[in-house]
Amino acid sequence: MKFNPVIEHLKTYEPGKPIESVVKEFGIDPKEIVKLASNENPYGCSPNVQKRVAENVRSMYRYPDDTMEGLKSALASHFGVEKEQLIVGAGSDQIIEFACHAKLYGGAKILQSEITFAMYRIYASQCGASVIEAPGIAHDLDLMYTLYQEHEPEIIFICAPNNPTGDCLDAVDIENFIERIDEETLVVVDGAYQEYAAFKDQHKAIDPAKLIERFPNVLYLGTFSKVYGLGGMRIGYGIARKEIVRSLYKLRPPFNVTTLSLMAAEEALKDQDFVTRTLEKCDEQMNRYIDFAETHGIGTIESYTNFITYMFEGATDSSELADRLLRKGVIVRDLKGYGLNAIRITIGKSDENDKLFHHLEQLLASKIR
Amino acid sequence: MKFNPVIEHLKTYEPGKPIESVVKEFGIDPKEIVKLASNENPYGCSPNVQKRVAENVRSMYRYPDDTMEGLKSALASHFGVEKEQLIVGAGSDQIIEFACHAKLYGGAKILQSEITFAMYRIYASQCGASVIEAPGIAHDLDLMYTLYQEHEPEIIFICAPNNPTGDCLDAVDIENFIERIDEETLVVVDGAYQEYAAFKDQHKAIDPAKLIERFPNVLYLGTFSKVYGLGGMRIGYGIARKEIVRSLYKLRPPFNVTTLSLMAAEEALKDQDFVTRTLEKCDEQMNRYIDFAETHGIGTIESYTNFITYMFEGATDSSELADRLLRKGVIVRDLKGYGLNAIRITIGKSDENDKLFHHLEQLLASKIR
Repeated sequence: MKFNPVIEHLKTYEPGKPIESVVKEFGIDPKEIVKLASNENPYGCSPNVQKRVAENVRSMYRYPDDTMEGLKSALASHFGVEKEQLIVGAGSDQIIEFACHAKLYGGAKILQSEITFAMYRIYASQCGASVIEAPGIAHDLDLMYTLYQEHEPEIIFICAPNNPTGDCLDAVDIENFIERIDEETLVVVDGAYQEYAAFKDQHKAIDPAKLIERFPNVLYLGTFSKVYGLGGMRIGYGIARKEIVRSLYKLRPPFNVTTLSLMAAEEALKDQDFVTRTLEKCDEQMNRYIDFAETHGIGTIESYTNFITYMFEGATDSSELADRLLRKGVIVRDLKGYGLNAIRITIGKSDENDKLFHHLEQLLASKIR
Repeated sequence: MKFNPVIEHLKTYEPGKPIESVVKEFGIDPKEIVKLASNENPYGCSPNVQKRVAENVRSMYRYPDDTMEGLKSALASHFGVEKEQLIVGAGSDQIIEFACHAKLYGGAKILQSEITFAMYRIYASQCGASVIEAPGIAHDLDLMYTLYQEHEPEIIFICAPNNPTGDCLDAVDIENFIERIDEETLVVVDGAYQEYAAFKDQHKAIDPAKLIERFPNVLYLGTFSKVYGLGGMRIGYGIARKEIVRSLYKLRPPFNVTTLSLMAAEEALKDQDFVTRTLEKCDEQMNRYIDFAETHGIGTIESYTNFITYMFEGATDSSELADRLLRKGVIVRDLKGYGLNAIRITIGKSDENDKLFHHLEQLLASKIR
């Protein structure tokens, strides 16, 4: 059967290996497996969220409240925006999908940094758009501006902090960049890890309300998958001027998030103490990763997220290393596919990190290549 | 900001009014509200499912196993198909979306019955496709064949049983129809309510395994939203030859169903006793609706689902009736938007149906028009 020729060449996203597969493939006891590959919150989600969801399993038969009134009110008050400036998606991923389908048609282009979140490219390609890349490990805003002038893309993606590298632009630099972009170009500012960045350095903190007040062409993205510990519940949000939200809403399938996800997110937003504790513990454990890297001569990129990128010299092959760790039951993300001889490691709980350090130390000593 | 001109004219799906809105709008105690508008299973889902989900709320922080190995194995064995012949979606809705995006490009067309599930048209329109309708309340397969020959659509949608009318084609008639369709045209057979139809009349029962064995161009859709009572969990599936599934998979976003939804669906499939009890109770209560209609001279369409369509003569206006019921706390679906002076009522639990009958009787006596 013939399908849209665009889809034949599509690449699909390569998710972190699930624990279930490692159990099956290597016969490792699931309790022994440490997954540090998908930047989940190792402390789970707030106990209040778990309680609320467990108490409401009876409601699984009911379609979600498609007005999402409860969660939207909570988000509106959290960010100081209006409900009509919000759109909720099955992960912020889905908002990227809406934005691509809304803006990209008839030979459109997106502009992004070379090494950034893979889904921008994937959704853009589904729409038949081409991808203009600004080379380099970090976002180079001057270069991006030059490419913007040359190619006139319909969407520019800025990932702050950037995934999978962990570095983060200063908020003021992002604003100065957007200032120079014409108002017909949608600028997506992906803040999936913003809570981590803002906690570490106020210069990185983006205020979505101010951002959309200043710029009519910005779509800010946030998620409950990271610091709120709800990666499995598929819920995130977009914040933009009403005009943009109204158009994205046209592409939103009804009931795009589950009944329990709406409850979980609403409850999660209330427990900001849980968020703060998560950030503190992450910071503490992050320092161990920095120390470990220094001790073992591993290159790092300063991280404003809950993961760290370990960069290796030619002698150590990141794919080989990731594979050997996997056989020990430690799942990390090899970044060879992004053109880096590096692995991305989620900052886990203390004992999980112990295990990673133990095995990594042994493997490095045995001179993996 | 300019968006794809296609989306400016898009209509969005009108979901059944959520209980939350009725509480807010009319100040009715939520406990007093009876929602018979969205064809949810009034008995909820299996207690085993509730237990499994409640016990696993800890896992909400983990991204779902994107291989969906567990659920796919269970579905494969339930239907006697291979895992590679399955694709799981955020409701069977999402599979419709994939199918539209895969087949509809460059001035494409879909063919459907005039009054059928609204999402076929909505997703097709998002792709800029035009919609060819076979007029009539029920699917008229002869007419559809004539229109197929005339318009050469890329996708034909058959909803069996049909929503929002409840009637159902015989399986053999569907097969004889598909027999005459060329293999480049995708025929989507939407079996969202198949369990109800198969229980009531074996002639309506579709065997997806046999269907895809016989026809290389069929995509069968099923859901956990109806008889399995998991409407809020957004999970459904498509069954087709591997070649079709492989192409649809290219459009599947990673992690398109939640961690808890996967668990819930897997557990739900195990409890076929719950399914049988649901079907028996629905059948019993359906008979009360048929009796009520006969007593009050209301027209009905024979239903093979968990809902019934009450058709009114000119003297009674369905929109007015639905609105008056709403003010009494009884939510039903007005079908005026589908061009019918009718309401669609989900078969509820005995006491819910009592309430509907009570208020409807009063309203009809007062000659609502």
